[in-house]
Amino acid sequence: MTILTLTTDFGQREGFVGTMKGVIWSIAPEVKIADISHDISPQNILEGAFALWRAAPFFPRGTVHVAVIDPGVGTSRRPIAVNIDGQFLVGPDNGVFTPFLEHAEKHSLAFDMICLDNPRYWLPKVSHTFHGRDIFSPAGAYLAIGTNLQDMGTPIEDPIRVDLPKPQKTVSGWITHITVIDVFGNLTTDLHADHLKGSQDIRCRLGGHEIIGLVSSYGERKPGELVALIDSEDYLEIAQVQGSAARMLDARVGDVVEVMIKPHEQ
Amino acid sequence: MTILTLTTDFGQREGFVGTMKGVIWSIAPEVKIADISHDISPQNILEGAFALWRAAPFFPRGTVHVAVIDPGVGTSRRPIAVNIDGQFLVGPDNGVFTPFLEHAEKHSLAFDMICLDNPRYWLPKVSHTFHGRDIFSPAGAYLAIGTNLQDMGTPIEDPIRVDLPKPQKTVSGWITHITVIDVFGNLTTDLHADHLKGSQDIRCRLGGHEIIGLVSSYGERKPGELVALIDSEDYLEIAQVQGSAARMLDARVGDVVEVMIKPHEQ
Amino acid sequence: MTILTLTTDFGQREGFVGTMKGVIWSIAPEVKIADISHDISPQNILEGAFALWRAAPFFPRGTVHVAVIDPGVGTSRRPIAVNIDGQFLVGPDNGVFTPFLEHAEKHSLAFDMICLDNPRYWLPKVSHTFHGRDIFSPAGAYLAIGTNLQDMGTPIEDPIRVDLPKPQKTVSGWITHITVIDVFGNLTTDLHADHLKGSQDIRCRLGGHEIIGLVSSYGERKPGELVALIDSEDYLEIAQVQGSAARMLDARVGDVVEVMIKPHEQ
Repeated sequence: MTILTLTTDFGQREGFVGTMKGVIWSIAPEVKIADISHDISPQNILEGAFALWRAAPFFPRGTVHVAVIDPGVGTSRRPIAVNIDGQFLVGPDNGVFTPFLEHAEKHSLAFDMICLDNPRYWLPKVSHTFHGRDIFSPAGAYLAIGTNLQDMGTPIEDPIRVDLPKPQKTVSGWITHITVIDVFGNLTTDLHADHLKGSQDIRCRLGGHEIIGLVSSYGERKPGELVALIDSEDYLEIAQVQGSAARMLDARVGDVVEVMIKPHEQ
Repeated sequence: MTILTLTTDFGQREGFVGTMKGVIWSIAPEVKIADISHDISPQNILEGAFALWRAAPFFPRGTVHVAVIDPGVGTSRRPIAVNIDGQFLVGPDNGVFTPFLEHAEKHSLAFDMICLDNPRYWLPKVSHTFHGRDIFSPAGAYLAIGTNLQDMGTPIEDPIRVDLPKPQKTVSGWITHITVIDVFGNLTTDLHADHLKGSQDIRCRLGGHEIIGLVSSYGERKPGELVALIDSEDYLEIAQVQGSAARMLDARVGDVVEVMIKPHEQ
Repeated sequence: MTILTLTTDFGQREGFVGTMKGVIWSIAPEVKIADISHDISPQNILEGAFALWRAAPFFPRGTVHVAVIDPGVGTSRRPIAVNIDGQFLVGPDNGVFTPFLEHAEKHSLAFDMICLDNPRYWLPKVSHTFHGRDIFSPAGAYLAIGTNLQDMGTPIEDPIRVDLPKPQKTVSGWITHITVIDVFGNLTTDLHADHLKGSQDIRCRLGGHEIIGLVSSYGERKPGELVALIDSEDYLEIAQVQGSAARMLDARVGDVVEVMIKPHEQ
């Protein structure tokens, strides 16, 4: 029993996602399909990359992740598939898998990558505007039923990358950036908890506010207060207790959060 | 073949729900997952309670219902699981299951309730902000594969309740309250059809309008007219034919609908 | 392994769709369910018809398509089921299946149609306002497990139709109409690519703009430019490269796109 996930910017109104499921189940009738998100902002590769990257670790080995945020559909941008340490990625070669590639390199994980250029694993007729249906869905479905990656196309080694935001070390702490704003208005940043280990007297500044210290959970402070904490993926997060920090601070993805820390005294 | 349902306020944009499905299928690969709603207003326990309560009767015995509207995540609020007459409920102990508990008590149905305090049935690492992923999804999945409820935690008997709106009897009829406003702008109230049995000359008043009589279906009146009828869950509903009563009347959940009735003449 | 698809205007907030899945899986525990769309504009039969019609060809033979856009629920409008060339359609008799019927007639495909008037295949209790749950979900589920169509009701031959937009031939080309506006703001029209075969010097006019020629894919022109191309279902489409033609032109479904063509010189 294999799982295939879908991450797209197709919305859920016109039926594009349903159509992809028809293609997938025509080839792989037993696969289970999990929608990660179909509400990625149109053509926002970075937003799609983060959504899939945060969800993928919670799927079992062998899962196939199909991501279609594809502003270059119909051009010479390559359709690709990757096997990273037993999970499969399928989508356009435009950087949407950058977090996976960086992670694999950092941890020296083996990965194989191909251009999906063998038409045997496409739909018989391929449009110029909907490769999510015509190339990526069938490719994902064939991988889900155990087709050999190497049979599906030509090896490549030079995938496109996007610049992922990275925190910058300063004299007094870190310059970090908002990477995700969730439905509650919580602000996730690019600063991993590891960077704060052993730190005391942590202060976060954004939008003219200063937040003193970290809390463990929202409930430690009163409704309406701004808090800083470590989120469920181990990154620094700014939140308003029982409110929306995004609305309160008019915050946007990419905004800077300044973190001042006092080093651990020895 | 077991079914597991999900009711949350997580939205569908950031991938939280997809992540939960990864956790669930990692433990229970064969379970079927039905999304009830992920668009509950943030932290609105009552709205989540109604959505699940209205849907649950249509699922077969043995279904596991996971509900995560959880403003107290990370605090001392307990994670709980309940077996009511063969259906399982899993979620935070904050009142989201109140309609089920009241129903069970009213009909003298047996129920068992535990605090999910056995970490063997959590994810290995539990965050302070996403128990939907770390505690409730694995608990639901373990119940779906037949794990004994009693093995998963300590029995409790004092669950938190929320105040459910209740209709009030008056000299001339009932004071009722809008409980749900649906996508069509139809207004469901807390008055069960049983309270209207044998009544004649029913009039409903709200927002300066008076609706005379009940209809059986929307189509009995002309487009644009306000009608009162018994909805698909047997509660009094106010609707505008081929329009939105909510928009027409600027109605909100909690608003009063006054019902005047003439008793059955004998 | 059968697939059942759902197309409704129920939204995803109140749990109506989840409830339908409970009904379906109670009868047909093994069926796979694909959501086509639940965000059809309230009671917009034509929009629902197009969404399902565009998705259906990508599902395997034997799939059951349940479509519930149903302004006449509870009136004398008939509930129907159709077998067209091995795919099943289930829904209200209000024209939502018109594109399938026209296609079947055009290609002389056999089809059988019944009124779902055998209550054995309904839920035991049928409401006046939610036949999606009480009649169409069980009917779809019974078809999915192989129940004979003829057993489920009385044959009919006079289904309701809606007027589908059709392109009109002019001296200089075609008057076409926008049929679907997707999440990217791309404008699909009712002009099939076959009508443009062998044409040269194609120009499209709408909203005071003229687009010269067709491109093969969005990427052939610069961001911001309007382009005309053949979409993934082989219809003429107007798009703005990496933008929204709908927003740029304030376009609506039903708007006219004028197409001027020069015939192929021989």
